[in-house]
Amino acid sequence: MYITQSLRRAVQMGAERIATRCGSRVKTWGEFEQRVASFAGALQSLSVQSDDRVAILALNSDRYLETYFAIPWTDAVVVPINVRLAPPEIIYTLNDSGTKVLIIDDAFAAMLPAFEGQLDTVEHIIFAGDHEAPAGTLNYELLIEEADPIEDEGRGGQEIAGLFYTGGTTGRSKGVMLSHNNIISNAANVVASMGYTDSTSYLHAAPMFHLADGASTFAVTIVGGTHCFIPKFTPTDFLTSVSNFKVTHGLLVPTMINMLINEPTLSDYDLSSLSRLLYGASPMPEAVLLQAMKTFPNCRFLQGYGMTETSPLITFLSDEYHVTTGDKTGKLASAGRAGITVEVMIADENDNEVPRHTVGEVLTRGPHVMLGYWKMPELSETTLRRGWMHTGDMAYMDDEGFIYIVDRNKDMIISGGENVYSTEVETALYAHPAVKECAVIGIPHEQWGEQVHAVVVLQADQKTSEGDLISHCKSLIAGYKCPRSISFREEPLPLSGAGKILKTELRKPFWKDKNKQVS
Amino acid sequence: MYITQSLRRAVQMGAERIATRCGSRVKTWGEFEQRVASFAGALQSLSVQSDDRVAILALNSDRYLETYFAIPWTDAVVVPINVRLAPPEIIYTLNDSGTKVLIIDDAFAAMLPAFEGQLDTVEHIIFAGDHEAPAGTLNYELLIEEADPIEDEGRGGQEIAGLFYTGGTTGRSKGVMLSHNNIISNAANVVASMGYTDSTSYLHAAPMFHLADGASTFAVTIVGGTHCFIPKFTPTDFLTSVSNFKVTHGLLVPTMINMLINEPTLSDYDLSSLSRLLYGASPMPEAVLLQAMKTFPNCRFLQGYGMTETSPLITFLSDEYHVTTGDKTGKLASAGRAGITVEVMIADENDNEVPRHTVGEVLTRGPHVMLGYWKMPELSETTLRRGWMHTGDMAYMDDEGFIYIVDRNKDMIISGGENVYSTEVETALYAHPAVKECAVIGIPHEQWGEQVHAVVVLQADQKTSEGDLISHCKSLIAGYKCPRSISFREEPLPLSGAGKILKTELRKPFWKDKNKQVS
Repeated sequence: MYITQSLRRAVQMGAERIATRCGSRVKTWGEFEQRVASFAGALQSLSVQSDDRVAILALNSDRYLETYFAIPWTDAVVVPINVRLAPPEIIYTLNDSGTKVLIIDDAFAAMLPAFEGQLDTVEHIIFAGDHEAPAGTLNYELLIEEADPIEDEGRGGQEIAGLFYTGGTTGRSKGVMLSHNNIISNAANVVASMGYTDSTSYLHAAPMFHLADGASTFAVTIVGGTHCFIPKFTPTDFLTSVSNFKVTHGLLVPTMINMLINEPTLSDYDLSSLSRLLYGASPMPEAVLLQAMKTFPNCRFLQGYGMTETSPLITFLSDEYHVTTGDKTGKLASAGRAGITVEVMIADENDNEVPRHTVGEVLTRGPHVMLGYWKMPELSETTLRRGWMHTGDMAYMDDEGFIYIVDRNKDMIISGGENVYSTEVETALYAHPAVKECAVIGIPHEQWGEQVHAVVVLQADQKTSEGDLISHCKSLIAGYKCPRSISFREEPLPLSGAGKILKTELRKPFWKDKNKQVS
Repeated sequence: MYITQSLRRAVQMGAERIATRCGSRVKTWGEFEQRVASFAGALQSLSVQSDDRVAILALNSDRYLETYFAIPWTDAVVVPINVRLAPPEIIYTLNDSGTKVLIIDDAFAAMLPAFEGQLDTVEHIIFAGDHEAPAGTLNYELLIEEADPIEDEGRGGQEIAGLFYTGGTTGRSKGVMLSHNNIISNAANVVASMGYTDSTSYLHAAPMFHLADGASTFAVTIVGGTHCFIPKFTPTDFLTSVSNFKVTHGLLVPTMINMLINEPTLSDYDLSSLSRLLYGASPMPEAVLLQAMKTFPNCRFLQGYGMTETSPLITFLSDEYHVTTGDKTGKLASAGRAGITVEVMIADENDNEVPRHTVGEVLTRGPHVMLGYWKMPELSETTLRRGWMHTGDMAYMDDEGFIYIVDRNKDMIISGGENVYSTEVETALYAHPAVKECAVIGIPHEQWGEQVHAVVVLQADQKTSEGDLISHCKSLIAGYKCPRSISFREEPLPLSGAGKILKTELRKPFWKDKNKQVS
């Protein structure tokens, strides 16, 4: 299986049909394929060779989608960059991946000076924005205009399609190597679950670098649907686009849904085209979901659960279980059941399946499981030991195969749909001279689901403030990863017998009245 | 991907849910899995080892389905035998495949004496019928009762799942090697196209050895649906089972649909549960299809086109195109569009794509394409040359990616240098109200090489003449394509085990003394 097959299938179904709607730009599938073949030719003329990495740092657009196909077309590997990262983190990602060509847009042109002299392997920067190309960059549209289109190089199967960086528990982010088989097997499962067809109009509203949205990128293409784009999510941009583009399907993270149902102008928009919304990437508070189902009575909801390492989807909670009456009630708190070709097992620490209703780690295997982590063979081996992907998430399964996530045991905080690994934040905090001990935890937040909170013990002779520490973090890591609140304590942090900080104890007072299970 | 994953997924979705309904026998998915694990254990105790072949020669039943899972479970290869073969052909298949264990049922017990001393590699014969096990055979139920269930051996991926023998044009039948990836990628495409869910009840009415029915065997399992069985197709058995088992889905070959719409007792049955019928395996005359759509107004029809070598499905004509009004009309003569992960190209003899609306050979590639032919490396290499499966079928593609099969390449008549595609002639004949069944073949002609000849079975209450029918054809298609001669027969046309009209049989008397190869 290979990514470019999905594009060729879309073209075969009608070269004159609409591929993309981005602002006022509209392209047919025939035009889209031509542009992909030309941009692939341009990359080749920039001496991009087999297995070279090409990174994209951009907001959502039709051009972003084109690069997702042009890069494999020219036998290279795509590296989509998290748009929320701070410059040092982006530099780390580009260097770690050994990126040869970087594609940016208007939103990131201002970062170019910060990259000066820092990029070890980047030979060219391509500007795919709408304004004039900054000095030292190549113009994307001009490249397409001048390049000779090339034949598809036929990259596929178990070859690496992309490096998808995900926050690391060690403070170092990891490049997840996904193959073409990984990505297309996910697409086939998504088509079956979402009911995508050639009359689907999908809105890319969540960031395209992330696989929550990426789950549908190839699925919508493979059925010959239409892609619509907004640069980034805002409630009114979303609503305007649904109305203007007659959008039928979309993916939103729970915080976006929460913002939508609280949007005062909601009733001004014609949302009658919207038939299905997929949500995922972080826990969905049931109250928000119920409110959303009321607010969008003609739209059916589906939940997806997964992670970058699983391309991304492991389980689906299908629309028929999003009900409050009838024999399919009672599953709203669940993350659903295994995708069509996915195997899921809830296991103990020896990888033995535990009885139903017993909490264990979520293991999964099948064609959706990553090849491994880029240049991290030991971690890859550990994570994929005994043939199973060890997700680190804790869950139980009911008698009908529905799983219920109770905790992310890798100690990750999910705030506004973004993964924040506490270790990374702790590393930043520890870099401050006044910090003696610290632990970063997620505490409840109405809008974001979880908020990043730090518990800090100061050095005896030092003083600092909450504001100072947060500013300090902001100089080191992305804003969304920084603590929103800090509590100081005198006594040392509680430790387990093995000397690990007992975050369970720290979380307890905050989650006392919530139904979140803590591990 | 592996076959037993589909079974485990079904069990995970509810061990108490109904897996099989066969006559008065009902088994849950939990029981089914237990029986599979036990029969796998029994096979192991009969020293079936990795890669050994286990053949099944039986009519449809729940036990047949069990063997489809137990054989991979014990790391062996399944060899489903065509139930219509004569004993010498069966012996050839068993010897060619090197089968170690043969499973038979009541319908084939009478053949055992003919096998005596003829089977080179078979060590055990297991009797999976309802009567007493014949002398020299092992009792299937007793084996399950006495065996220790074993753990799944985990066979999967590119390993051979089965040898599916298909009629050879050279008179020698070929064992098509299909991998687990082949079969499960087909299943994922079928789920997406057929809309199978956990509330599907599928009736195995076409023979289970053949992949037309087999296309749904793993697809229905993977969604946790229910399998229903009739030993073999008869119109009244089919109708009774649909009514009794509340069947929702089925696969029928065109000749079966033709028999159903001509069944006088049809209106006696409650067919309200039937929501979708897939048809395929041979060309569907449009007149028959239109009549079927009238006869089953609440049932949606889908067409599948493919072959054993492609696991089997290449294209689907979805239900929304089975209409006679609206903007989706005009596709009924088409075999549909490529399956989700399937690539199709219409090509000239150098494998270059031909323009749309131009006839060429159907080539296909993707995860559904066979590993090759068993012990026929040269033929495998030729058939799979340049990365494409060469189907031998001739078709053209329209602007929307729908393909129209004009000929199964060994079924073309060359008359006076003109290619006559028999399907087209048969479609014209079926449009005549007096025609119940027909087959068009080439017979020897001194001047033209071949002459177009039709064999026709008339409706019981209708009369017509050779001259009338030829005139009728001339009103619809070019003169050179029309039959020059017609023979009428009383008895139904001869059918293969898969329900295809056996043109070989019809041709034989005409070509007796000629050296033309017959397919």
